[in-house]
Amino acid sequence: MKIAVINGPNLNFTGIREPHIYGSKTLDETNAQIAASAPGVALAFYQSNSEGQLIDHIQQCHHDGFDGIVLNPGAYTHYSYAIRDGVAAVGLPVIEVHMSNPHAREDFRHKSVIAPVCLGQISGFGSHSYVLAIQALIKILEVQK
Amino acid sequence: MKIAVINGPNLNFTGIREPHIYGSKTLDETNAQIAASAPGVALAFYQSNSEGQLIDHIQQCHHDGFDGIVLNPGAYTHYSYAIRDGVAAVGLPVIEVHMSNPHAREDFRHKSVIAPVCLGQISGFGSHSYVLAIQALIKILEVQK
Amino acid sequence: MKIAVINGPNLNFTGIREPHIYGSKTLDETNAQIAASAPGVALAFYQSNSEGQLIDHIQQCHHDGFDGIVLNPGAYTHYSYAIRDGVAAVGLPVIEVHMSNPHAREDFRHKSVIAPVCLGQISGFGSHSYVLAIQALIKILEVQK
Amino acid sequence: MKIAVINGPNLNFTGIREPHIYGSKTLDETNAQIAASAPGVALAFYQSNSEGQLIDHIQQCHHDGFDGIVLNPGAYTHYSYAIRDGVAAVGLPVIEVHMSNPHAREDFRHKSVIAPVCLGQISGFGSHSYVLAIQALIKILEVQK
Amino acid sequence: MKIAVINGPNLNFTGIREPHIYGSKTLDETNAQIAASAPGVALAFYQSNSEGQLIDHIQQCHHDGFDGIVLNPGAYTHYSYAIRDGVAAVGLPVIEVHMSNPHAREDFRHKSVIAPVCLGQISGFGSHSYVLAIQALIKILEVQK
Amino acid sequence: MKIAVINGPNLNFTGIREPHIYGSKTLDETNAQIAASAPGVALAFYQSNSEGQLIDHIQQCHHDGFDGIVLNPGAYTHYSYAIRDGVAAVGLPVIEVHMSNPHAREDFRHKSVIAPVCLGQISGFGSHSYVLAIQALIKILEVQK
Amino acid sequence: MKIAVINGPNLNFTGIREPHIYGSKTLDETNAQIAASAPGVALAFYQSNSEGQLIDHIQQCHHDGFDGIVLNPGAYTHYSYAIRDGVAAVGLPVIEVHMSNPHAREDFRHKSVIAPVCLGQISGFGSHSYVLAIQALIKILEVQK
Amino acid sequence: MKIAVINGPNLNFTGIREPHIYGSKTLDETNAQIAASAPGVALAFYQSNSEGQLIDHIQQCHHDGFDGIVLNPGAYTHYSYAIRDGVAAVGLPVIEVHMSNPHAREDFRHKSVIAPVCLGQISGFGSHSYVLAIQALIKILEVQK
Amino acid sequence: MKIAVINGPNLNFTGIREPHIYGSKTLDETNAQIAASAPGVALAFYQSNSEGQLIDHIQQCHHDGFDGIVLNPGAYTHYSYAIRDGVAAVGLPVIEVHMSNPHAREDFRHKSVIAPVCLGQISGFGSHSYVLAIQALIKILEVQK
Amino acid sequence: MKIAVINGPNLNFTGIREPHIYGSKTLDETNAQIAASAPGVALAFYQSNSEGQLIDHIQQCHHDGFDGIVLNPGAYTHYSYAIRDGVAAVGLPVIEVHMSNPHAREDFRHKSVIAPVCLGQISGFGSHSYVLAIQALIKILEVQK
Amino acid sequence: MKIAVINGPNLNFTGIREPHIYGSKTLDETNAQIAASAPGVALAFYQSNSEGQLIDHIQQCHHDGFDGIVLNPGAYTHYSYAIRDGVAAVGLPVIEVHMSNPHAREDFRHKSVIAPVCLGQISGFGSHSYVLAIQALIKILEVQK
Amino acid sequence: MKIAVINGPNLNFTGIREPHIYGSKTLDETNAQIAASAPGVALAFYQSNSEGQLIDHIQQCHHDGFDGIVLNPGAYTHYSYAIRDGVAAVGLPVIEVHMSNPHAREDFRHKSVIAPVCLGQISGFGSHSYVLAIQALIKILEVQK
Repeated sequence: MKIAVINGPNLNFTGIREPHIYGSKTLDETNAQIAASAPGVALAFYQSNSEGQLIDHIQQCHHDGFDGIVLNPGAYTHYSYAIRDGVAAVGLPVIEVHMSNPHAREDFRHKSVIAPVCLGQISGFGSHSYVLAIQALIKILEVQK
Repeated sequence: MKIAVINGPNLNFTGIREPHIYGSKTLDETNAQIAASAPGVALAFYQSNSEGQLIDHIQQCHHDGFDGIVLNPGAYTHYSYAIRDGVAAVGLPVIEVHMSNPHAREDFRHKSVIAPVCLGQISGFGSHSYVLAIQALIKILEVQK
Repeated sequence: MKIAVINGPNLNFTGIREPHIYGSKTLDETNAQIAASAPGVALAFYQSNSEGQLIDHIQQCHHDGFDGIVLNPGAYTHYSYAIRDGVAAVGLPVIEVHMSNPHAREDFRHKSVIAPVCLGQISGFGSHSYVLAIQALIKILEVQK
Repeated sequence: MKIAVINGPNLNFTGIREPHIYGSKTLDETNAQIAASAPGVALAFYQSNSEGQLIDHIQQCHHDGFDGIVLNPGAYTHYSYAIRDGVAAVGLPVIEVHMSNPHAREDFRHKSVIAPVCLGQISGFGSHSYVLAIQALIKILEVQK
Repeated sequence: MKIAVINGPNLNFTGIREPHIYGSKTLDETNAQIAASAPGVALAFYQSNSEGQLIDHIQQCHHDGFDGIVLNPGAYTHYSYAIRDGVAAVGLPVIEVHMSNPHAREDFRHKSVIAPVCLGQISGFGSHSYVLAIQALIKILEVQK
Repeated sequence: MKIAVINGPNLNFTGIREPHIYGSKTLDETNAQIAASAPGVALAFYQSNSEGQLIDHIQQCHHDGFDGIVLNPGAYTHYSYAIRDGVAAVGLPVIEVHMSNPHAREDFRHKSVIAPVCLGQISGFGSHSYVLAIQALIKILEVQK
Repeated sequence: MKIAVINGPNLNFTGIREPHIYGSKTLDETNAQIAASAPGVALAFYQSNSEGQLIDHIQQCHHDGFDGIVLNPGAYTHYSYAIRDGVAAVGLPVIEVHMSNPHAREDFRHKSVIAPVCLGQISGFGSHSYVLAIQALIKILEVQK
Repeated sequence: MKIAVINGPNLNFTGIREPHIYGSKTLDETNAQIAASAPGVALAFYQSNSEGQLIDHIQQCHHDGFDGIVLNPGAYTHYSYAIRDGVAAVGLPVIEVHMSNPHAREDFRHKSVIAPVCLGQISGFGSHSYVLAIQALIKILEVQK
Repeated sequence: MKIAVINGPNLNFTGIREPHIYGSKTLDETNAQIAASAPGVALAFYQSNSEGQLIDHIQQCHHDGFDGIVLNPGAYTHYSYAIRDGVAAVGLPVIEVHMSNPHAREDFRHKSVIAPVCLGQISGFGSHSYVLAIQALIKILEVQK
Repeated sequence: MKIAVINGPNLNFTGIREPHIYGSKTLDETNAQIAASAPGVALAFYQSNSEGQLIDHIQQCHHDGFDGIVLNPGAYTHYSYAIRDGVAAVGLPVIEVHMSNPHAREDFRHKSVIAPVCLGQISGFGSHSYVLAIQALIKILEVQK
Repeated sequence: MKIAVINGPNLNFTGIREPHIYGSKTLDETNAQIAASAPGVALAFYQSNSEGQLIDHIQQCHHDGFDGIVLNPGAYTHYSYAIRDGVAAVGLPVIEVHMSNPHAREDFRHKSVIAPVCLGQISGFGSHSYVLAIQALIKILEVQK
Repeated sequence: MKIAVINGPNLNFTGIREPHIYGSKTLDETNAQIAASAPGVALAFYQSNSEGQLIDHIQQCHHDGFDGIVLNPGAYTHYSYAIRDGVAAVGLPVIEVHMSNPHAREDFRHKSVIAPVCLGQISGFGSHSYVLAIQALIKILEVQK
């Protein structure tokens, strides 16, 4: 079972600033926590601030035979129809993840243009959101077999 | 650890009709699945079609010493500011749960008036959404201790 | 042939006040008129001011083997997505009825959130709206056989 | 008792194409069904694709001594304030009729600019919508005498 | 002179939590304060979290011969057209009351769908809002005699 | 000096019904009043309920050498971008006229899609609106010479 | 017959700058032209850039026995509900006048909050708009006698 | 205890016209009624039609040592962000008052831009609204001591 | 292969006025250019300013065995749901054509209500837009065989 | 070189209250700071809470031969189309200035109706915003010579 | 004659997935088809998922002396004001192309922010859309010579 | 003191095309002008058309110890919530700069999604906008010391 964990803009900055929103873990520490929580799964981690590179990477998951994607699109959540199209095109189960609860923040964060083409959403649990998403994805992939 | 699982309108009808949206499990079967997934937790299940009774029950969780709530507000998600006020007032961690992915359905389901006062959201994983929410809540309550 | 006639909030008050909008017949008189107009049909009448009880009752029509529902949701017409979900879930033909013409009244009455999941609408003919709805439902049920 | 049945744009095409929306009856067959359902009433049938000719015809009903109008404005329902003004000016009871349920179709069909000046609406019952409208109109005209 | 004081959802929770918004008085203490301020008036106190029961109770005021109503609809203020219709139908002077100033809180609290059918509004004075409303109602009822 | 006076839908019905809005003069009487007020001007009167014929006629004014147009587009005022294009294309000074004050009527009458391509507007003075428009047009045409 | 001609903000600047919009006449020259066009009428001219002084002056027309008002509210047209209330309160026929055609300019000029309480509007004819308004007012006042 | 009672545009015209909205009392009579209702309070009355002068006066209350303000902003209620800023800046408790119920009137009166910075609102009780506001303010000031 | 070229309102006026928008060719010259570009195709040209006649003609293409339609709906593009219904009903491939680029003109021209039921759009190339549309239609019809 | 520094409503209150927004300098101290920063320029300072007087003063700058204006319109920024017209009419370079960053405050402060007719904007730098605006204006005026 | 064919995000994925929307041709096959259709033209093909690289490439067309651009911006069509600015700045004729008909898909695809600065649009003809665009561009460039 | 000057999309094209909007200076010349105006400051210049690279660079300013940023986000101003998040996260004072006055251009340029997290804005002064921003930043940094 191969799962990609893809993070969008500014998530490489977690743990550096704004700990009241994103907690004090760095992205590397979060990734380690995720890996530890799913020992039998082949996980690949990727982060980029660039919309285009995120789309490249989502497409690449198709070519590389991944089984599913855990995606935190960062602020691209709210306007990137291009990432949405990439998610729709790649044909893999994708789970949208957020560390904070977007609905408790600014108005523009209440809308996700990517959510309609994802399988589900998990948000509000800090770095544990990713762990839950991996568990959800494992469950779904097991059922599909 | 005491957790309440509260379901809103029409969720007592799952498994009876519209399995393409909500799956073929009845609410009782879902509740049994949830209970089985969290053996060490005291779980209490409640369902009502009535907005007022749901508020009564959320308030009662305060009086009865519950540690947290997993709440699927059904269609009240989209307009019940009264349930929102109840969630805000009760002062417990509340996780909003949906079996289907609301963002992939009608427009009116894209907005949750309750989400801003919840801790987090989990949606799109069928009855497994509840299981993940319980796990998330356990994690949060353990951290708080 | 079993048909339920379900009335929502404040329709128990017709004939008591505001006759310029709803006429001078009481709900009992209207129900008697409906019954008289459809002698061969088993009719069951129900009214509640409570959104939750209306949903309970719509669901119960499924369990009790009704063939169709004539529904006047009163003011819930304009915002009760929970009743809408109940109508969609129950899987019976439902006709939305209004005594007055909602389009000739306040703006908020121009939108029905329940109409999209009903079979049809009849409005503007006072208590005769129900009679027409029963006739329409009989016709539909006869065709379906 | 003289009643005009007026159909707007593209209703002359029913029975020719799109039977999943409008049924397989032609307009002539529908008119015959309506006539058969109201043997004692003088019915006059009219159809036009032209907004202006529909207004001409609605006005003519005043000059020709009609008692009421059953009007299916087709797509003009959604934007023809000119037909609305014609209906308001003619001073006869007018019932708006639709074969399909507009609320279950595209968003632009959810709004009727003509409804506020009609007596009532009947929609969703295929060609039987007209039959019910004639019955409603007869009832109203009998009461007015 | 008989006046009903009716409180909507979550107002039974005042004094228990969120004192920065609603003060530290319980609903019983507030009711006692109101009673003390109007010794010569027959006051009846009612609270419910249920929209339907609130409508039932407003209607009952007509049957029980009340002279007026002081109503705090809680969060139903912002969307309950059903309570609005109940207020309009009951035919008694109704004053809308809020303890906090809704305009200084979230956007959704800025709109009252019930206000247009009330006689007046008093908001922002904590439990004293009720006292002022009783005084206003007494004044109005004296003038009407 | 040749001026066309063009009236849109339902203005042939003035004087027949709704005198509280449009006065008790028929269109012929109004035209006679206009003619009497401008003895030295060659006036041509036209009315149609049809959007297309109104455009035909506006275009024809170019071919027939008219100097200007007084146009009451009736309800087409509010949505006929096709008449707007005709007015813009014909290249003559056009004055928009209304007998009633559209701003004191329903919301949909507050917007004119034709006004931006007209020279000016005169509204609210009953049949005298046309007389003032002719005077305004004469003034403008004299200045242009 | 006493008529007040009241001009709002920046209309004292006409003839000084922006002649492509307002023409090259100063306000004094425009007032002289108006006076010359209505020799038998007692005209009083007033201009202010201040919303409050315009209201003062409109109210004063009541105290001073004026028969009607020709009002160019300038940019206050688009937002001054206070002037609107003043016009509604004064109880005199008021005609709204604009020198340019507001509908052919910026979007914010397309809406007049004052128009609904005026008798009529005349716009687009430069300084001649006032002359036509005076003529319209004389006509109306003669009819009222 | 020093309280300022400040009235905005057109409130100097109450009792002169439109008694169906504002009653038949003049502003002087209303002020006398207010004074009589609060014998132990130093009251200062002010009215202006000018937004700027109202702001000047609100600011002056700071310099003159007033304890609170009862403010009826008239139509400025709906758009004067400048008065709002003045109220926010002056740092005194301000109560917004309306004689009529704005929510039962035109749409534009449903929004108050000043309410968010006031302490509370009282509306719908005619001149008695001011009396209640004074009583509310006294109560608040007594508590603050 | 039979293709209809249908033009809507004011397109009979091209080449007469506004050459900066529509070029200096008359409609006849444009039709000749189209015919010359598709020598092997049976082309039928039609123009009308009337919405109803355009619908009549679109329907007639069904009866007359046309293979496809090139349609320039003129300003009806932006609001004629009746033409849209005609296009949807006729069951032939229809290509929407514009000579100018609607997106570079006024806001109201940015929306086409007809586009969703067409096969494709070509706009911005003057009279050459029609030539390209014929070529596209030929290609499609060849593929369908 | 003559430059006017014009301040709108409540800016005379800076330094008196709300120092967290506007700093602790009084307007006089700010003006002194501005004057000190531009020793070779003839500066004239003006403040008013009145919209009309601000327009009067902006116009007067034309008559008095000023070379440019630095304008802080206070809350009028957000709705005064009358000041906008004054700025557009005066024909001098005008720079809009704000001490705070309006985009980081309430929603209604995000829109400036005056900005489109100004040369540029400077905001967010406290009293130093004025100093920068004077420097910008000097630069522009030097280039124009 | 040098023409660039530029494709935006996810268009490198055509032929791989979602053939019901984009057909079964790969981008390379489409490019080959385009090249075959325009033998005498120097064509350069480019695709990127990155907004920034697309802008880089559009700018480069200016430096490399291209005569025109055929641009399919993919999902950037709907929000990339940055690409719009690049198109406006490059000063070459640009034709916007879509394989599918965006108006027949989701709402967010109905708006193009790039269209206003393009010369024209061609959409709905699959890979043939590009062929038609090249032909249109050739025609335009020949006319410009 | 170290300040970064960061330019977004298409600003590398200034001086090449559209001098009526951006002036005739190239970006290099503008940067030279900025450097000349602040001799004692360590300035670093960066430009990219890519949203992701701009975010990378803003983050890098944190790692490289810059004291502040002058940022012209180009068209990303209007929709890049990702850059906004980068600015908020970097924790340095950032000043938003525009060469033109965005409020005097198209509607979509009136909104900045980045402004709420910047310290201030300077726009409308061509290349001099940067010079003023550097001066403002120096002032702020001096005060902070």
